[in-house]
Amino acid sequence: MKDIYIADLANFDEGKLFDGFFLVLAKQQRTTKSNKPYLNLILGDKTGQLEGRVWEPSDPRIAKEFERGDIVKDRGSASRFDDRLQMKVDQLRKAQPNEVDKADLLPATTYDVPTLWKQLLGFVDSFTNPDLKLLLTTMLADPAISHAYREAPPAKQLHHAWLGGLLEHVVSLCTLADRVLPSYPLLDRDLLLTGVLLHDIGKVRELSWEIGFEYTIEGTLLGHIQMGVALTEQTIDSLPNFPPRLKTLVLHMILSHHGKLEFGSPKLPMIPEALALSFLDDLDAKMQAIQGEFDKCLREGKSADELTGKVWALDQRQLLNTKRWLGEGKE
Amino acid sequence: MKDIYIADLANFDEGKLFDGFFLVLAKQQRTTKSNKPYLNLILGDKTGQLEGRVWEPSDPRIAKEFERGDIVKDRGSASRFDDRLQMKVDQLRKAQPNEVDKADLLPATTYDVPTLWKQLLGFVDSFTNPDLKLLLTTMLADPAISHAYREAPPAKQLHHAWLGGLLEHVVSLCTLADRVLPSYPLLDRDLLLTGVLLHDIGKVRELSWEIGFEYTIEGTLLGHIQMGVALTEQTIDSLPNFPPRLKTLVLHMILSHHGKLEFGSPKLPMIPEALALSFLDDLDAKMQAIQGEFDKCLREGKSADELTGKVWALDQRQLLNTKRWLGEGKE
Amino acid sequence: MKDIYIADLANFDEGKLFDGFFLVLAKQQRTTKSNKPYLNLILGDKTGQLEGRVWEPSDPRIAKEFERGDIVKDRGSASRFDDRLQMKVDQLRKAQPNEVDKADLLPATTYDVPTLWKQLLGFVDSFTNPDLKLLLTTMLADPAISHAYREAPPAKQLHHAWLGGLLEHVVSLCTLADRVLPSYPLLDRDLLLTGVLLHDIGKVRELSWEIGFEYTIEGTLLGHIQMGVALTEQTIDSLPNFPPRLKTLVLHMILSHHGKLEFGSPKLPMIPEALALSFLDDLDAKMQAIQGEFDKCLREGKSADELTGKVWALDQRQLLNTKRWLGEGKE
Amino acid sequence: MKDIYIADLANFDEGKLFDGFFLVLAKQQRTTKSNKPYLNLILGDKTGQLEGRVWEPSDPRIAKEFERGDIVKDRGSASRFDDRLQMKVDQLRKAQPNEVDKADLLPATTYDVPTLWKQLLGFVDSFTNPDLKLLLTTMLADPAISHAYREAPPAKQLHHAWLGGLLEHVVSLCTLADRVLPSYPLLDRDLLLTGVLLHDIGKVRELSWEIGFEYTIEGTLLGHIQMGVALTEQTIDSLPNFPPRLKTLVLHMILSHHGKLEFGSPKLPMIPEALALSFLDDLDAKMQAIQGEFDKCLREGKSADELTGKVWALDQRQLLNTKRWLGEGKE
Amino acid sequence: MKDIYIADLANFDEGKLFDGFFLVLAKQQRTTKSNKPYLNLILGDKTGQLEGRVWEPSDPRIAKEFERGDIVKDRGSASRFDDRLQMKVDQLRKAQPNEVDKADLLPATTYDVPTLWKQLLGFVDSFTNPDLKLLLTTMLADPAISHAYREAPPAKQLHHAWLGGLLEHVVSLCTLADRVLPSYPLLDRDLLLTGVLLHDIGKVRELSWEIGFEYTIEGTLLGHIQMGVALTEQTIDSLPNFPPRLKTLVLHMILSHHGKLEFGSPKLPMIPEALALSFLDDLDAKMQAIQGEFDKCLREGKSADELTGKVWALDQRQLLNTKRWLGEGKE
Amino acid sequence: MKDIYIADLANFDEGKLFDGFFLVLAKQQRTTKSNKPYLNLILGDKTGQLEGRVWEPSDPRIAKEFERGDIVKDRGSASRFDDRLQMKVDQLRKAQPNEVDKADLLPATTYDVPTLWKQLLGFVDSFTNPDLKLLLTTMLADPAISHAYREAPPAKQLHHAWLGGLLEHVVSLCTLADRVLPSYPLLDRDLLLTGVLLHDIGKVRELSWEIGFEYTIEGTLLGHIQMGVALTEQTIDSLPNFPPRLKTLVLHMILSHHGKLEFGSPKLPMIPEALALSFLDDLDAKMQAIQGEFDKCLREGKSADELTGKVWALDQRQLLNTKRWLGEGKE
Repeated sequence: MKDIYIADLANFDEGKLFDGFFLVLAKQQRTTKSNKPYLNLILGDKTGQLEGRVWEPSDPRIAKEFERGDIVKDRGSASRFDDRLQMKVDQLRKAQPNEVDKADLLPATTYDVPTLWKQLLGFVDSFTNPDLKLLLTTMLADPAISHAYREAPPAKQLHHAWLGGLLEHVVSLCTLADRVLPSYPLLDRDLLLTGVLLHDIGKVRELSWEIGFEYTIEGTLLGHIQMGVALTEQTIDSLPNFPPRLKTLVLHMILSHHGKLEFGSPKLPMIPEALALSFLDDLDAKMQAIQGEFDKCLREGKSADELTGKVWALDQRQLLNTKRWLGEGKE
Repeated sequence: MKDIYIADLANFDEGKLFDGFFLVLAKQQRTTKSNKPYLNLILGDKTGQLEGRVWEPSDPRIAKEFERGDIVKDRGSASRFDDRLQMKVDQLRKAQPNEVDKADLLPATTYDVPTLWKQLLGFVDSFTNPDLKLLLTTMLADPAISHAYREAPPAKQLHHAWLGGLLEHVVSLCTLADRVLPSYPLLDRDLLLTGVLLHDIGKVRELSWEIGFEYTIEGTLLGHIQMGVALTEQTIDSLPNFPPRLKTLVLHMILSHHGKLEFGSPKLPMIPEALALSFLDDLDAKMQAIQGEFDKCLREGKSADELTGKVWALDQRQLLNTKRWLGEGKE
Repeated sequence: MKDIYIADLANFDEGKLFDGFFLVLAKQQRTTKSNKPYLNLILGDKTGQLEGRVWEPSDPRIAKEFERGDIVKDRGSASRFDDRLQMKVDQLRKAQPNEVDKADLLPATTYDVPTLWKQLLGFVDSFTNPDLKLLLTTMLADPAISHAYREAPPAKQLHHAWLGGLLEHVVSLCTLADRVLPSYPLLDRDLLLTGVLLHDIGKVRELSWEIGFEYTIEGTLLGHIQMGVALTEQTIDSLPNFPPRLKTLVLHMILSHHGKLEFGSPKLPMIPEALALSFLDDLDAKMQAIQGEFDKCLREGKSADELTGKVWALDQRQLLNTKRWLGEGKE
Repeated sequence: MKDIYIADLANFDEGKLFDGFFLVLAKQQRTTKSNKPYLNLILGDKTGQLEGRVWEPSDPRIAKEFERGDIVKDRGSASRFDDRLQMKVDQLRKAQPNEVDKADLLPATTYDVPTLWKQLLGFVDSFTNPDLKLLLTTMLADPAISHAYREAPPAKQLHHAWLGGLLEHVVSLCTLADRVLPSYPLLDRDLLLTGVLLHDIGKVRELSWEIGFEYTIEGTLLGHIQMGVALTEQTIDSLPNFPPRLKTLVLHMILSHHGKLEFGSPKLPMIPEALALSFLDDLDAKMQAIQGEFDKCLREGKSADELTGKVWALDQRQLLNTKRWLGEGKE
Repeated sequence: MKDIYIADLANFDEGKLFDGFFLVLAKQQRTTKSNKPYLNLILGDKTGQLEGRVWEPSDPRIAKEFERGDIVKDRGSASRFDDRLQMKVDQLRKAQPNEVDKADLLPATTYDVPTLWKQLLGFVDSFTNPDLKLLLTTMLADPAISHAYREAPPAKQLHHAWLGGLLEHVVSLCTLADRVLPSYPLLDRDLLLTGVLLHDIGKVRELSWEIGFEYTIEGTLLGHIQMGVALTEQTIDSLPNFPPRLKTLVLHMILSHHGKLEFGSPKLPMIPEALALSFLDDLDAKMQAIQGEFDKCLREGKSADELTGKVWALDQRQLLNTKRWLGEGKE
Repeated sequence: MKDIYIADLANFDEGKLFDGFFLVLAKQQRTTKSNKPYLNLILGDKTGQLEGRVWEPSDPRIAKEFERGDIVKDRGSASRFDDRLQMKVDQLRKAQPNEVDKADLLPATTYDVPTLWKQLLGFVDSFTNPDLKLLLTTMLADPAISHAYREAPPAKQLHHAWLGGLLEHVVSLCTLADRVLPSYPLLDRDLLLTGVLLHDIGKVRELSWEIGFEYTIEGTLLGHIQMGVALTEQTIDSLPNFPPRLKTLVLHMILSHHGKLEFGSPKLPMIPEALALSFLDDLDAKMQAIQGEFDKCLREGKSADELTGKVWALDQRQLLNTKRWLGEGKE
């Protein structure tokens, strides 16, 4: 396990030595004004990113061969430059396998992934519609899909942007849908849950998360909506006798789940289940983003009277932590 | 009880005689091309509106004194003109008190109002925050408010546009909120439910529903958001020691519940409870509008393959009744 | 061949008898004010639509058994009601097979379809990229696709809204693309032409054109963009060794060809060929709409000084026929 | 009185010593790369802000105890870093009471406040409607309101953003309204002036201006429109027999004065006085912003041929000083 | 003078005979269902428009030769059809010259045109800038311009849509500008008044008002902004030594006076005079539209409690007549 | 010819000496922290801009007299500061006439200007409409216009932003128009080409390009559309017997060529030639911007898998170089 995380360095004394395992997100060769070569690195772990400078790349304590994507162990000190932290790297070597958990290097869900996965399969198991149950069972039994589903983040930045975040978001949404369903008897439970389980399935191909979170070129040109529809349609077409009307409805739910044309859904929700899906998905993403901002404020030591930073997922609005503000008001 | 409702006339043979109790929504004196005076009426009941023509206003079987707002009993026959129904009125007299239930003349909730009211008070009773509990108890104990709350429609046209519709909508939302709350521990239950209970309280003054549903001039110039905030603020100010921060939050929830400036909220939701309220309110309104459209299609005998009409609350989108369409696909 | 077309009736004397073959687009039973049953019909041919009234449905000269979708021969006279034409139908019988050409009943391209088809295949034949050539050859060799491609209209109303209109539009666009290509050497000709040939392929499933032009339920819920992508992807996946990058680009062109998210493209054009396709497609549709409006003005006898009606495809703008206006100015 | 203002430093030689009184807007402890602690300050006066660095915080000439909100006397020199000015602080002590005028530390109106206040009361005195006169007299007689009214800035940044700016803006608007009124006899003078006097009254609670200009949390969650409506409604409700219709109109004017929903007015102007108010308020704010930009250009020594910087209140447009440009053209 | 105006007919008994002079705005030959020819006319006078039907065109009392644009005297009776008035024309002859004042046939200003013109010249006379004075004097001395300026309406429909309306609007704006100028010393009076006097000068060519108010083809393709700039530029270029900078500013004011790109101004106001012009022009147009709506409500007998119809110039908003509503509240 | 261009310095070793000719785009006097005066320069050539620092302005090797707009020869070394390049200038003298080609100092077309000009005249020569031919011949024969036309850039930044860029863009558009014309017989070739040749003619006055590319004040206040219309109208008015309708159409094409009001066209295209012009102009600008971005990526050594930077002319979209990406995929 890592001892020091990038987020910890904010409160670190400048100049004090420390060791840490990091993922190399970028590596560039440069020269100083006095024409001396040095290395500029972007180092990352699950708590953030940090610029690193190797002023003496020929020092024998600096490994010669390491590349973008490698995990390294660095020793050095932090300094602050124009309010950004920078690490002066004195020693650097590639990490041994198993010396560090990859989950420490990219942000990851704090939930237990096997438990989440079991919960998700439990929802499928509760289906009464045999066609939809077979569809989900088939897709989730595909090793490539199920492996990626457990790892994928649902976004590069906005909400649940961490390893396992997609799984966490979907299980949260299934639970939410099951709570909301009794209020609206016109909703078909199996169809709504199918939409929840598959709406972001294209993310497993849209994003790559080996070295940081990036969109693949295919993801950029086609998008996770199209990729998810294609994946689902292929599976459906491989099942004998899947009802064609049901196929249309399942694909429509994936296509329309962003709820608005300008958010990249080529069709607006035209069935009640699709409308409910787009609302619940949006609500869950926003509530998670708010929770994330509140946690960040606490980490950064902001007072109860201060608003959060501008929240991207809420159109750059700032929020107030109700419970903290009320709590303080009582004292 | 009424025997014949306006909605029934759609399938009525032209020319066949019938009797009915109606509310007079408008009354105008006119003359025919041949210079003969006649009366043009708009008649309404809980199922719709109908134009009525009294071609012989001097006939002794036509009451002389009746006005807009009166309940009348008419005898006559229906005819179709350019696809709109019209009633030729042969006899007309003012109804006796108790001859007809006013609830038959304006559309009204199909739920039992005392039961709904009890459910609503039950939510207040479950509060743990004493200040919010006192606020709600005080407001709902005001006879003027509690009487109007039980009758008011929450809109002139869009969703729940019927007597008791506000109460029905609020109870539905309380239930929904209680179902959603376990998913988001950051939400303060009492504050969220307070928002649900008070968000549309200004409707009791914005709309009048004596004769059809109309906006009052005050309602038009100030709006139910401002009226609801004022009503709430007055009550709070009458309570000794209501915490000022809590007052700010309660008012903010009413102010921001439309969720967007262009929908008439002068402030966007800036606390998690306000965000959740705007989502759930919007979802509930839309789901009710969809259910209403599906019911209307059934009444009108549309086939399972036909989309609904354009739904105002969904930006004029047309919807498909999933369950009917799938059901038919199976046969 | 038909003798009289609906468009001809505009200049017809009211009351004068005529015969005509029409497609029955709708049929409803109604009763008059005096309680007499009659039939209300919507009759169509390739030049327009007309309301028909059968006042004596029990007349032996009126066929008992005919339905929506049947072709009938009617005898009757036209009358004008509030500026709309109406036909009083005196006689009506179902048409014999071959008595009338279906092409006379739905608007159809004025070009020779086999010639257009040959031109289209000629473009495919000129490809130098073997993968794209094989893809197109395979798709166009599928009898279901090629038959539909030759018949489909590309829109219900806007532009080229006639049988064979899709084929006409695509051949026109291929020719245009070939003319523009020398100006921009950065464009890959085969990829651009592939986009032209496939961008609207989903229309063969989005629309039905048996009885008038209608959207299918599947078309309404999924849209021709998604349907075209799916059709293309299935064919590509059936070809061994189709390059995966090329697949991404072909699908991207179909996905993005509407050029804007709010026009239903879930992705904006991100390669030069996709950008060019969206421009040329839009230009061709608009130029055709203008030509259609100019033709209509001539048919309706408008003077050279009058603007056209409001053109839907040009945001309700009105246009001026330059050549006519200048020509008249010279006299 | 202060000798040196922050705005003067732009033309100051780097390194030259100077003394000055400043308000401490922020104070942070930091360390240099070589691990030496220093203080980073934000210093302000009525002409602007300046970053200050105390490199030797333990120097006996540097006061130990001073906080955000204190007024201090600093000695040091200016330097330019990446085009921003920075002050190197050599000596620092807390200012004695009365050593400096607070009006020198926050930007303030250049008009005489008692004179402005008298002008404002003069407008009230000229009312002929006794109810409106009583309303205004009552509100302005409230010491808390009248004191704040004389100090409040009407905005944090945009226009009249200085102490007394609200009063200055309102007197300017009253004068303007009185000039415009003869052009539109349909306008009720007393009602329009009431709107002018009260439209921004909520600002006295929305903003705090003790230490710089900031929004209060209540102001952020409720906004000055709601706060002004509440303040006015409370006063009206305390007056016996204030006409209810007049109350509705006064509140409507405050509610609608931003003129557009997207600017935070929950209602659009629906009476002529409200429309006129929204126009004149907007015009006055923009003209003041332009005057402010022209003054800034002169201070910064820009030539007559240069446009101003981008003006926030005019959608980032740049403006030309007509008179200067024409004047120069004549030479 | 005319005895009966179209607006009077609203309260007219159906069937009662009357005579009137009207302008023929349209004339069409049609046939009845029974194949009988009749004439359909659009008749207009300064108070509105009316459909006329000549059922017996061969009646000797109906003139044979009259065309669109002729003034006729009609005798007949009014009838109401689906709430629109229609005139049954029994007799019709062309009017004698001088039998009717053309000002009675198109809506016209109620002010005295020579007086307005004198006021306008008075403003020019008060200029101190000799170049601007010469420019205005020259333009207004051109007989074609000065004649048209006195007649032109400034719009086809929206505001001041009557003969002499442009002149009335400009004089009103000059007066308003002179009232506002003392509030903003940064404004150059002569330049602002020049903008007021010339901003709509292009209307004299954009519209034709011989037979109703219509846009010319040139007006439709170029617009009054461009036409006004061209007219002004030609005059300026004909004056020796007009300062080039002043020319730029004058043209900029005309170009930018609509205040927004989407309203057809190709440039936004970038000088204070242009900004003031766009505000005052907009305010004056809206206040006049409101006054017009209030007058219409009085004419139509609407009660003080009713809102106006939807006002085009105010984005379809409805307004309340403050003074009437307050007045009624007092009784 | 210059030896070293600013773009070359990106790969230059820090500290290494070099010589170069540059245009002085800005010159400022400053002082260091230690109160030493130095000069800050912005130097430019056709490949970019560079900040220069003269730390010893009194060094005899530094010229005393040089100003903004001068061409200088500098000797010094490059250094990198926070990723921006800076030049330390050791020697500086004004360049001799003819020592450097001005075309090396501002970006310029890579085509041969006399050849482009000849092509442009060839298009005019091919006109069959004598009026349009005379118009163009007259305008292009004006030495001021023809000289500026050959030099002007069509934009400060977006597309073809280089000397001769306007000419290059227009010739490219003429060629494109000629290719597209056979597809749309309704287009008048001479009118369309006239629009192409004149649409941006106002740029010769809107921009100045002596020292960098800047908008003139007149250009900023009036815009190239208005300036181009005025220039064209003056020429037309000087020609005897130019048909007035043709004049209207030519001016309309210039006015409407931006295609949207919000892009500064005061009229939307209302004739087919204007619509075609706005499409082709937009397509050509975008294709050139894409080509420019692809070239830049190659220069900067980006891999085939990387998207371009955000392209201003394409709403900040990033693009993929199809041919490179496919090419790499094949290896």
